[in-house]
Amino acid sequence: MPDFEPQDPDFEARVRASFGRQTVMTTIGARIERVVPGEVEISLPFRADLAQQHGFLHAGIVTTIVDSACGYAALTLMPPGTGVLTVEYKANFLAPASGVRFLARGRVVKPGRTLTVATGEVVAVADDDTERPVVTMLATMMAIRERPGVAD
Amino acid sequence: MPDFEPQDPDFEARVRASFGRQTVMTTIGARIERVVPGEVEISLPFRADLAQQHGFLHAGIVTTIVDSACGYAALTLMPPGTGVLTVEYKANFLAPASGVRFLARGRVVKPGRTLTVATGEVVAVADDDTERPVVTMLATMMAIRERPGVAD
Amino acid sequence: MPDFEPQDPDFEARVRASFGRQTVMTTIGARIERVVPGEVEISLPFRADLAQQHGFLHAGIVTTIVDSACGYAALTLMPPGTGVLTVEYKANFLAPASGVRFLARGRVVKPGRTLTVATGEVVAVADDDTERPVVTMLATMMAIRERPGVAD
Amino acid sequence: MPDFEPQDPDFEARVRASFGRQTVMTTIGARIERVVPGEVEISLPFRADLAQQHGFLHAGIVTTIVDSACGYAALTLMPPGTGVLTVEYKANFLAPASGVRFLARGRVVKPGRTLTVATGEVVAVADDDTERPVVTMLATMMAIRERPGVAD
Repeated sequence: MPDFEPQDPDFEARVRASFGRQTVMTTIGARIERVVPGEVEISLPFRADLAQQHGFLHAGIVTTIVDSACGYAALTLMPPGTGVLTVEYKANFLAPASGVRFLARGRVVKPGRTLTVATGEVVAVADDDTERPVVTMLATMMAIRERPGVAD
Repeated sequence: MPDFEPQDPDFEARVRASFGRQTVMTTIGARIERVVPGEVEISLPFRADLAQQHGFLHAGIVTTIVDSACGYAALTLMPPGTGVLTVEYKANFLAPASGVRFLARGRVVKPGRTLTVATGEVVAVADDDTERPVVTMLATMMAIRERPGVAD
Repeated sequence: MPDFEPQDPDFEARVRASFGRQTVMTTIGARIERVVPGEVEISLPFRADLAQQHGFLHAGIVTTIVDSACGYAALTLMPPGTGVLTVEYKANFLAPASGVRFLARGRVVKPGRTLTVATGEVVAVADDDTERPVVTMLATMMAIRERPGVAD
Repeated sequence: MPDFEPQDPDFEARVRASFGRQTVMTTIGARIERVVPGEVEISLPFRADLAQQHGFLHAGIVTTIVDSACGYAALTLMPPGTGVLTVEYKANFLAPASGVRFLARGRVVKPGRTLTVATGEVVAVADDDTERPVVTMLATMMAIRERPGVAD
């Protein structure tokens, strides 16, 4: 991975504060684990009340954590005063999301003034700590300037 | 939209029963509204505890309902004894997900023995009942045969 | 489809002139057929020297015409002085691309000042004039301002 | 990258022979460079007759080589008697495709009996040999069995 130079020296506090405002993360039980320039990790313990019909974690919940990981990875490299929104993403589901917890990692591929491209992955961790990839994502994030209510 | 001929006369009961096993839908408050051959609708009232950092419904939650709408649209056309899993999807976010409720519609584009392609959209409904599109999705669903634990 | 109001009264001449500068279109034998606000059609006769290994039109060539159809559909709604570039696209291949000619249609889903979302489809036309869908695309296009060399 | 074990000892000859049947590759001037288990590279010199309107290599031509690189990366791991078809792909364009030549690399992320997920990238090589990424792709490939005319 290339080394990225953050434009905001307070990027970590800024990302963690914004994550703290994502009420859905508290609702599902996700935590932000790691915030470095161009990369963010979010963890989520399995919960039976977030499942799809076969008892696996629902694809949309897996997507929820990896979307935020990608978005915040992008935000680490944005200048102060901008907000981040998801333009679009694509996710491939590599295996059913079964495990005791899930770790989503977002990484910037190409930062830009307006658009940032990021990749994400989610691994399922079993109770013996073995990891298995369950999702790979390719996402486009947008830096928002001067839109009321959209700042991070 | 083309007319689709279901292979399972009990497709509607089967889809509704499978949806009933998606515990995440109860957790977030989603309901299945409409089940016809090749098309399924799911509704979700806005809840402040499912938001991202600017107070909009989180992209991943929007994705959760439209993924299920697409998957169940595919399932309406699958023969008895198969299960459905999401292979992959791509979603474009057209506008921030603000509204009093959201309606996700999944429609089959091309059914197949193994793979089914579907499109989805989510509209946000305002308190004056006006609708605004917030997401468009393109998804690939897979019919699963003879895998223990994966039947719908 | 919604009615779109072009910001450039000369949008059709502008799109056709830009298409005329896409040298690859001459090389593969594609023609621009229809240019209306928010929608563009491009046709391509089958040629055996554009095939993949089973004799079908190569997925990348199918993509070439539908990418241009989507990009030019976006350009019909952009103001004078902007150029258009493809941010990203996703294509699902519904059937092998066999036919005597192919027709790509791009349509704007959501125009925007910076980003425009479009959908595309390619149908294969058989020698009895029956049509069969072979590709569906979901694409993001970007309006480029004041970048030397990128104007349409 | 994980080590992959090919199921067909003749995978390299098989991939090269199938590539040789892709007439479009001869037409555009592409060559297959490297074939190892789970990974394939294809090169393409820039040609002014494959350009979009600003003189860059057309996004669809870039996609043509990286689609084949991903498809053949998948084929290296498929058993004898199967053919490979593209189910879908998504490509993000990171920079305009300007350079003297282009190198597309496809790599398997997750092989499967029916579906294989691959990632691809294209780098543009300048005349001073510096490389710049221009595309990143995420693709789903399908193993085809017992369909007349579709073998590799």
